[in-house]
Amino acid sequence: MESEVSLAAGNRASSLTLTVMNRYVLNLKGIPYKTEWVEYPDIESRWKELGIPHTSLKPDGSPFYTVPAIHDPSTGVYLSESIDIAEYLDKTYPDTPCMFPHNTLGLLSPFNDLVGSYLAALWQFIVPVVCVRLNPASQGYFRTTREAIFGKNMDDVVPKGDLVTTEWAKVKEGMGKVDVLYSKTNGPYLMGDALSWGDVVVAAHLAFMRAIWGEDSQEWRDISSWHDGRWKRVVDDFEKYATVV
Amino acid sequence: MESEVSLAAGNRASSLTLTVMNRYVLNLKGIPYKTEWVEYPDIESRWKELGIPHTSLKPDGSPFYTVPAIHDPSTGVYLSESIDIAEYLDKTYPDTPCMFPHNTLGLLSPFNDLVGSYLAALWQFIVPVVCVRLNPASQGYFRTTREAIFGKNMDDVVPKGDLVTTEWAKVKEGMGKVDVLYSKTNGPYLMGDALSWGDVVVAAHLAFMRAIWGEDSQEWRDISSWHDGRWKRVVDDFEKYATVV
Repeated sequence: MESEVSLAAGNRASSLTLTVMNRYVLNLKGIPYKTEWVEYPDIESRWKELGIPHTSLKPDGSPFYTVPAIHDPSTGVYLSESIDIAEYLDKTYPDTPCMFPHNTLGLLSPFNDLVGSYLAALWQFIVPVVCVRLNPASQGYFRTTREAIFGKNMDDVVPKGDLVTTEWAKVKEGMGKVDVLYSKTNGPYLMGDALSWGDVVVAAHLAFMRAIWGEDSQEWRDISSWHDGRWKRVVDDFEKYATVV
Repeated sequence: MESEVSLAAGNRASSLTLTVMNRYVLNLKGIPYKTEWVEYPDIESRWKELGIPHTSLKPDGSPFYTVPAIHDPSTGVYLSESIDIAEYLDKTYPDTPCMFPHNTLGLLSPFNDLVGSYLAALWQFIVPVVCVRLNPASQGYFRTTREAIFGKNMDDVVPKGDLVTTEWAKVKEGMGKVDVLYSKTNGPYLMGDALSWGDVVVAAHLAFMRAIWGEDSQEWRDISSWHDGRWKRVVDDFEKYATVV
């Protein structure tokens, strides 16, 4: 590698789950990199300028540009979509720890969406807190796009009254499904002794939650107490790969 | 093993997907077994009599007993739920080919449900054909329970008119998602050179479709033509493990 990789991440205050995943991967692999923080409203124009491919299409059919993205000066590659970045880094730097051991890229491809479906009830608790923590430059964009997704005003997104208990129970149930997957092997990882992209996904979700709510919050204390303390162990184990460069 | 394992399968004419999976696994492992066909209405009483555990709970909270199930006389074990059977056979007969290579039981646990979610549009095409092919002893039970699931009369389950094209396109789209997973490795299996439970699940779905519609049906000809002929290759490759004993 001639020089360090650039990881373009979302607004520093939000420190998106997906960005955490690629930070873990770069640190795990020991690849030198620097982070460039980008405000939400600037992503599209900056990506077009750099020639970073879009990740998917918006409902209106126009291209949708997302963080994280990387630029690798040693190959000239610009790439977005966190799992594609991990796959690229595995292939380009084969002497570093592999994220998809034993040809598990196919099996692990749906894993982030799977965890997302298990944790469908989580985001209503997270998004309103993220919103107020963003820089002013990103806050309006984030509010408008997320209100459209939830179909309600940001103030109405977070569960209230009895819904707090029932919706939070769904988050615990979702983490329970992830716990079942872990319990199938003798750990500490989803694939037993082999760390993989699956663990990166889970640890990044946990690190994101802990960062958003804070270590002393009731939410994080709850999560730390669930499933025999597994979640604190998982995220603590990844702490050595969490350095923000 | 002192004597042969029994595989209790659904009505022979329906030859359920899940039953096909365990037949593949037993044949792949070279474990001698014999199949006992059970009519749907007889499953619950027979399972209770043998002490086979239930698989899940019905909406009313009562236990739900399902095929396939096995009895292994060498250990005295009675077991249902196809992935649990595969896990049991891996552990009990460790010198036979492993269905969850490299500690992938956790990663592969959600795989059947994942394929099921990709193929949500498939069953409306399949179930009415299965219904008329069952033995009379199973037909009433199957009709009643499936009509409750679909919330319509059996005659109204299969798509009609313009819906045939749009719903069939969803089946192709679902198979396309499975194709993407395969395309992530250099095959022929989901894990590259290593056959796993993932391939068993996909091949069993295909074998079931082909058996229900027939090899000369328009449906099977369509599927054989999709995704560069992948599906015919996958199911043909498993033909050597398809013997019904």
